Amino acid sequence: MSSAANLPDAVAANLQAAQLVYDQCLALAGVSEAQGRIQRSYLTPQHRAANNLVTQWMQAANLQTHTDAAGSVVGQSQPDARKTLVIGSHLDTVPNAGAYDGMLGVVLAVQAAAMLDHAALPFNLEIIGFAEEEGVRFGTTLMTSKARAGQWQPQWWDIRDAQGVSLRQAFADFGLEPDQIEQACPRKDLLAYLEVHIEQGPVLDELNLPVGVVTGIAAARRFKLTITGQAGHAGTVPMLMRKDALVGAARCVLHADAMARNLGIVATVGQLEPSPGAINVIAGRAELSLDVRSLDAALVDQFVSEYRQTLQQELNAMGLTLDMQQIHDADAALCADHLQAAFAEQIDALGLNTHYLSSGAGHDAMVMAELCDMGMLFVRCADGISHHPNESIEVTDIAWALTILIQTIQQLGLNYDPNS
Amino acid sequence: MSSAANLPDAVAANLQAAQLVYDQCLALAGVSEAQGRIQRSYLTPQHRAANNLVTQWMQAANLQTHTDAAGSVVGQSQPDARKTLVIGSHLDTVPNAGAYDGMLGVVLAVQAAAMLDHAALPFNLEIIGFAEEEGVRFGTTLMTSKARAGQWQPQWWDIRDAQGVSLRQAFADFGLEPDQIEQACPRKDLLAYLEVHIEQGPVLDELNLPVGVVTGIAAARRFKLTITGQAGHAGTVPMLMRKDALVGAARCVLHADAMARNLGIVATVGQLEPSPGAINVIAGRAELSLDVRSLDAALVDQFVSEYRQTLQQELNAMGLTLDMQQIHDADAALCADHLQAAFAEQIDALGLNTHYLSSGAGHDAMVMAELCDMGMLFVRCADGISHHPNESIEVTDIAWALTILIQTIQQLGLNYDPNS
Repeated sequence: MSSAANLPDAVAANLQAAQLVYDQCLALAGVSEAQGRIQRSYLTPQHRAANNLVTQWMQAANLQTHTDAAGSVVGQSQPDARKTLVIGSHLDTVPNAGAYDGMLGVVLAVQAAAMLDHAALPFNLEIIGFAEEEGVRFGTTLMTSKARAGQWQPQWWDIRDAQGVSLRQAFADFGLEPDQIEQACPRKDLLAYLEVHIEQGPVLDELNLPVGVVTGIAAARRFKLTITGQAGHAGTVPMLMRKDALVGAARCVLHADAMARNLGIVATVGQLEPSPGAINVIAGRAELSLDVRSLDAALVDQFVSEYRQTLQQELNAMGLTLDMQQIHDADAALCADHLQAAFAEQIDALGLNTHYLSSGAGHDAMVMAELCDMGMLFVRCADGISHHPNESIEVTDIAWALTILIQTIQQLGLNYDPNS
Repeated sequence: MSSAANLPDAVAANLQAAQLVYDQCLALAGVSEAQGRIQRSYLTPQHRAANNLVTQWMQAANLQTHTDAAGSVVGQSQPDARKTLVIGSHLDTVPNAGAYDGMLGVVLAVQAAAMLDHAALPFNLEIIGFAEEEGVRFGTTLMTSKARAGQWQPQWWDIRDAQGVSLRQAFADFGLEPDQIEQACPRKDLLAYLEVHIEQGPVLDELNLPVGVVTGIAAARRFKLTITGQAGHAGTVPMLMRKDALVGAARCVLHADAMARNLGIVATVGQLEPSPGAINVIAGRAELSLDVRSLDAALVDQFVSEYRQTLQQELNAMGLTLDMQQIHDADAALCADHLQAAFAEQIDALGLNTHYLSSGAGHDAMVMAELCDMGMLFVRCADGISHHPNESIEVTDIAWALTILIQTIQQLGLNYDPNS
């Protein structure tokens, strides 16, 4: 970790503000549905309490605030300006979450607004704290950024949470009106969307860098694989007569790992369940998940095609059958070159090495990228751990990110072409 | 399958008796705790009803019957004879069982007794229907054969079933007296113990043979393996920085399969559970079972030693740790050479090829082998399927087994040396 002593003056000057951002993340962590753990779901009293905290901080930064029609909290500097620069992230969490995934990006942007002379910017600054990114309560991710981007789906209204409450009812209980949902997507002329987020991976920590410039959000495809063999007694069926579905599944796991390494992408089997799953019974069936991602969608497609063919041949030769069903397919969302360059320019100016990396995780930014140019800045998190109480970031890294964000916004103001 | 037309006269003559055995197995299958499925557990009303049926059949065979102190049903021809030949198997079943695993050996022995002139035998014939082999109700296998062999364990009395009923209470509810349990092991001079059982494996079916002579019951060792790595986000952790416990577990599965094939033994991973088990999370931990068996205990030991060393090295090189705990260790139980020869002599005399095979499954015979010489005859079951409603045997195969059992008992009578 960088020590404060080695920081450029501009970054060192922001350490106190960074500490405030850190403390505000911890204050939000205290707003939780669960005793002793962090959990904040969509349209809950805790969602409202978090919005209220952020609203106060936005108002202290002289922003004009409102809760939008989907429940996101919004602060704006000049709502009537011709162009709007949106900066956001989310305030909801997974169960037993860390304190920074999402919240850091919102709180940091509000702090940047507090420190900027935003009245002097040639555009409206809109900071948004999205209310539903993780998909915990209704099993659907990115709901509020999709509302902001005009992609709300009418069939969502009837989705019910674990307690049987429909999304429509949850809206009413929260004081929102379902038939006003399109107002969450105001017809504004957007300059760009920026998002600061913890990396949720180990790359920056390994490189000992406080921040990195995101090149894009990876394309992802997910599959459910089912291998069918023949169950049998673990003691009585000779090895040569077995059709062990778990042995086939093990080959699927190892091939996914090896083929992803060869292609320079990532592939993960996170779920695997043999059936019947008894200590003395050969598995007659196994189900597993496969998650494949790369910023280069062509490599993902190549992986899937080669994987399917290789495994089907290999498993058939073992007397097994493989069924491979796609259950998810997300396109890549590329960060605009000029926004990558805008972040990199400020990083260079501070004397730091600019590291470019793709995001394997999804973010609200991938939705906003369909509305306007999108840029993202990653902040190091310790050991790459996220979605876990051990999620951890350094105040000095917040100071780096805050400094870079403020200077990037200012530079976008200087570069602004009123005729564009 | 053999057609009736090709049967030796001695076997063909027993087809009608074999059909009776088959029908009696189906009659027992009707005595079930579960609607539409076969399940018969220890010390239940269904246990009593099964005992009552078998008692009637034993009495029809002119045997003197009683229920022993552990709940097994016993029929004897000459209780006061100096020597006793015990023939048995079990009447309890797994949940959703087949109709023959256990029951066939009891009913077949009773039918043999009915067809023999057992009064002319120079020894007592004791047929026993054990009441607890599968271990379903109290999680402990082979309880009643252990009672018969004087190996009842006092600590069993406090084991409770899923409804919280202790074994002690279940004894009382059944009308048995716990403090009489040692009477289940009468101090008799045993000539031998014989058991006929379905193979529960596919070997005889593959060889198209109705029966096979068992050489012994395999030694078995079971382990719980725990692999620890590092959980992480499936999208954000590059392949080179992963410590994926499920990739390690997959190697454990494939090595078990390959090493067992090399050594000519059997090894099975039947359980495998990655944690946290989410589609988008790299497994930080995986638990799996390992079951290793062979009649040659030295090969089992060699497997375990090589496996532990190979996997520990390989997983450590991947940044993973392996913990391997033994949770079960059963010695091999060898069938007496002279009893194998006694079965083989009758098989040869009927013009059938004698196939010798070991049992990978445990049986009451492995307990009785500690009391006296033990011999087993396996009967083909279709596709090796057992512990499943599809468990299936042929009436002609029962006729073969019945003929061989009767002739073996008679030959043991002819060979009997009163001075031994």
